[in-house]
Amino acid sequence: MAQIAKQSDDFPRWYQDVVREAELAESGMARGTMVIRPYGFAIWERIQREMDDRIKATGHQNFYFPMFFPYSLLEKEAEHVEGFAPEVAIVSHAGGEDLEEPLAVRPTSEAVIWATYAKWIQSYRDLPLLYNQWANVVRWELRPRLFLRTTEFLWQEGHTAHETEEEAVREALLIHEQVYRDTVEKVLAIPVHGGRKSAAERFAGAVETFTLEAMMRDRKALQASTSHYLGTNFAEAYGVRFLDREGKQQLPHATSWGASTRLVGGVIMAHGDDQGLRLPPALAPVQVVIVPISRGDEERARVLEAAQRVAEDLGETRVQIDDREGVRPGFKFNEWELKGVPVRIELGSRDLDQDQVTLASRVSGEKAPVGLAGVTTGVAAALEAAQRGLYDQAVAFRDEHTFRPKDMDELAALLKDPGGFMVAAWCGSAECETRVKDETKATIRYVPQDRLDPGAPCIVCGHPGTEEATWGLAY
Amino acid sequence: MAQIAKQSDDFPRWYQDVVREAELAESGMARGTMVIRPYGFAIWERIQREMDDRIKATGHQNFYFPMFFPYSLLEKEAEHVEGFAPEVAIVSHAGGEDLEEPLAVRPTSEAVIWATYAKWIQSYRDLPLLYNQWANVVRWELRPRLFLRTTEFLWQEGHTAHETEEEAVREALLIHEQVYRDTVEKVLAIPVHGGRKSAAERFAGAVETFTLEAMMRDRKALQASTSHYLGTNFAEAYGVRFLDREGKQQLPHATSWGASTRLVGGVIMAHGDDQGLRLPPALAPVQVVIVPISRGDEERARVLEAAQRVAEDLGETRVQIDDREGVRPGFKFNEWELKGVPVRIELGSRDLDQDQVTLASRVSGEKAPVGLAGVTTGVAAALEAAQRGLYDQAVAFRDEHTFRPKDMDELAALLKDPGGFMVAAWCGSAECETRVKDETKATIRYVPQDRLDPGAPCIVCGHPGTEEATWGLAY
Repeated sequence: MAQIAKQSDDFPRWYQDVVREAELAESGMARGTMVIRPYGFAIWERIQREMDDRIKATGHQNFYFPMFFPYSLLEKEAEHVEGFAPEVAIVSHAGGEDLEEPLAVRPTSEAVIWATYAKWIQSYRDLPLLYNQWANVVRWELRPRLFLRTTEFLWQEGHTAHETEEEAVREALLIHEQVYRDTVEKVLAIPVHGGRKSAAERFAGAVETFTLEAMMRDRKALQASTSHYLGTNFAEAYGVRFLDREGKQQLPHATSWGASTRLVGGVIMAHGDDQGLRLPPALAPVQVVIVPISRGDEERARVLEAAQRVAEDLGETRVQIDDREGVRPGFKFNEWELKGVPVRIELGSRDLDQDQVTLASRVSGEKAPVGLAGVTTGVAAALEAAQRGLYDQAVAFRDEHTFRPKDMDELAALLKDPGGFMVAAWCGSAECETRVKDETKATIRYVPQDRLDPGAPCIVCGHPGTEEATWGLAY
Repeated sequence: MAQIAKQSDDFPRWYQDVVREAELAESGMARGTMVIRPYGFAIWERIQREMDDRIKATGHQNFYFPMFFPYSLLEKEAEHVEGFAPEVAIVSHAGGEDLEEPLAVRPTSEAVIWATYAKWIQSYRDLPLLYNQWANVVRWELRPRLFLRTTEFLWQEGHTAHETEEEAVREALLIHEQVYRDTVEKVLAIPVHGGRKSAAERFAGAVETFTLEAMMRDRKALQASTSHYLGTNFAEAYGVRFLDREGKQQLPHATSWGASTRLVGGVIMAHGDDQGLRLPPALAPVQVVIVPISRGDEERARVLEAAQRVAEDLGETRVQIDDREGVRPGFKFNEWELKGVPVRIELGSRDLDQDQVTLASRVSGEKAPVGLAGVTTGVAAALEAAQRGLYDQAVAFRDEHTFRPKDMDELAALLKDPGGFMVAAWCGSAECETRVKDETKATIRYVPQDRLDPGAPCIVCGHPGTEEATWGLAY
């Protein structure tokens, strides 16, 4: 049997155990790297497909930029290099020789892409550029954790260029809502709060960062995606200018936006329980597992045949029949629960005698007989209920663990026990933000998209509040 | 207007011009790297999708291995490291520090995958492992050419493990035929000859390499894919053993197989002409372009509306309406011809008055009026004819340029003029193979899958022939 720590006893251990026992991923041979195993990769492939469809539906095209570029390129945007230099991997030897100029392995691609946009953008007629790439990136992590922080990870990064600030901000928000929120909430069934990052938490080189924040089952926050309005910083740094409609030279406005394999970690931690993974049906590589139960060859042939018929009836549903011999049904049940398959169909001889099967739901834990004629409808209903159920449970959990502390002491105490999102007024100063971080390790996860007067004094310094901030401990 | 060299005047120049002017790709900032532009990437995405569907339909799953692994890992398989060491890029600095052990950037992943399979494979019950990954790899190239040889390229690499040699060889041939040949011939419309590589041309570490070879319009050969039976070399090198059905320790048998972005180069060179690209409809990101032709706003509104209706009628077909203002129709025609779009619909006021449109085929060059009611049928027929036409033309071209020279002099002369595939008996010795290469630069592209007595003396040395070899100049 799979050995999994209890989620409530030791959350980090539980996470490690689930990742290993559900065969999602394991550590690679170079420090901090990750092997994404087939079951884990199938989940990522579904996230990719869903996100890619939305990226294209909103008018973007994919391209591909090299992962190596001259290190000196990174240094042209001051904030950007300051943010990323400590994490960059460098190639200085290739093809049996030392390279004349060391190459950076992309930690993100603003530098190489904007250096190239200088060739692609001459006139307002060339704008907007609405491009995205799926790629691996490398950021040297001191404390790697599978899916959450690995030295190499997979992601998509969008890079767009626009005539005006207004258009670029609209683009960043479009991606934020129609690509990211839509995928995360509807497919991953993870409710998210959207907002702006504080200056301290912004992407290195951004004017504004929009974030989606989700709560995990240990009440910590996970950043699900970010969309940045980069202003004209990169255009300036890489010498990109265009002739506008009045024939004047202008700097184009930029956005970039990314979501990565850490979303798989988010799915594990937002929905998982003591039995292991719980996958939303829209994401599950296997939506329904059929476990035939039989004694003897004759019975076996009969239930297998029935299982095949049920699978065929389920049409487009992603079904797997677990016909392994020499493995007890109870063992199979546990294994598929561990792997988070939303619906299990148990199919035995006695069931068949009564023209029925047993349908078990991973999310509700319910188990009930269903007539053979009603399997398709029953499964469809169970899948729909599972998708909704996971989302609703996550919303309820998050709301139960969202607090409005009245002062710093209460904020610190609630962060410790039970933990969660702390909503409070903030004066907007970096000093107060730093003080909270130093005293509690909590960071501002987001402030609302539209600046609203919180109508209360800053929870830290007591000066007038200018923002309502949500604090949390974060991955 | 796009400046493209004549294909017959200067083929390499023509290739460069087409890649640039059709906006397929351009050089990256680090030497030998490539930026794949959106139109080029859309072609690669279609190749990926088609191949991935076939890889999954034949029972394989995707996973993902890190691109970095300790360099020392590569050294465990002697032939393998000898083949790849000269091309490897090395990371020796990351996260602000020198690394204790330098990391190889994968040139291919046999080493890191088989080192991990040692953990995954214990018993015959764990076999077969049927896995694939889509990834970027790095091989330092001295003479880079866009799509054909770049220091970083995109590909898929399959890595499977089996109980027996027979099963592993069957696997390599399954991929060779049902994944590679099927995609290349049916989707890319490029006819290929399949066969074995000679020992000298085999993958470093393979027992047998199966190859698909295509002829380009300059009569040179392009290797479209390779599938390797690796024997037990990698299992031995990385200590992978399993308990067989009799309880004995055995070495599993391996295969690996890959196809890459160089296939995009193959499409350009197999089908292109003096006007630019010619894309097979199954591959084309845009299958049909509609060019509305009008004078004045009123006419413009009318033809645009009609164009939209035609586009809707075409349903699943990938249609684009080129409604750019201020660009002459003739310019648009040339541009879409350059981009290889198989079918063009011209739609003007005069056409509409007669309830018709003009349909032009990129492959046949034919242009004819079609009644509005018959557009869907007409387009379907034109697309089918284009797909078949490109394939048939390529077969005819290849067969016209396949020769059976009677001696070395004729082989050398025919290779120079007109060039092509030279089929002749070979004694199987490396000496004769090397002599041909030294004298003519031609290599053995393939020998037939099944060893057949050629019934003639070796074209080089005159000793009894043991194989019928096909020589050619190759990319």
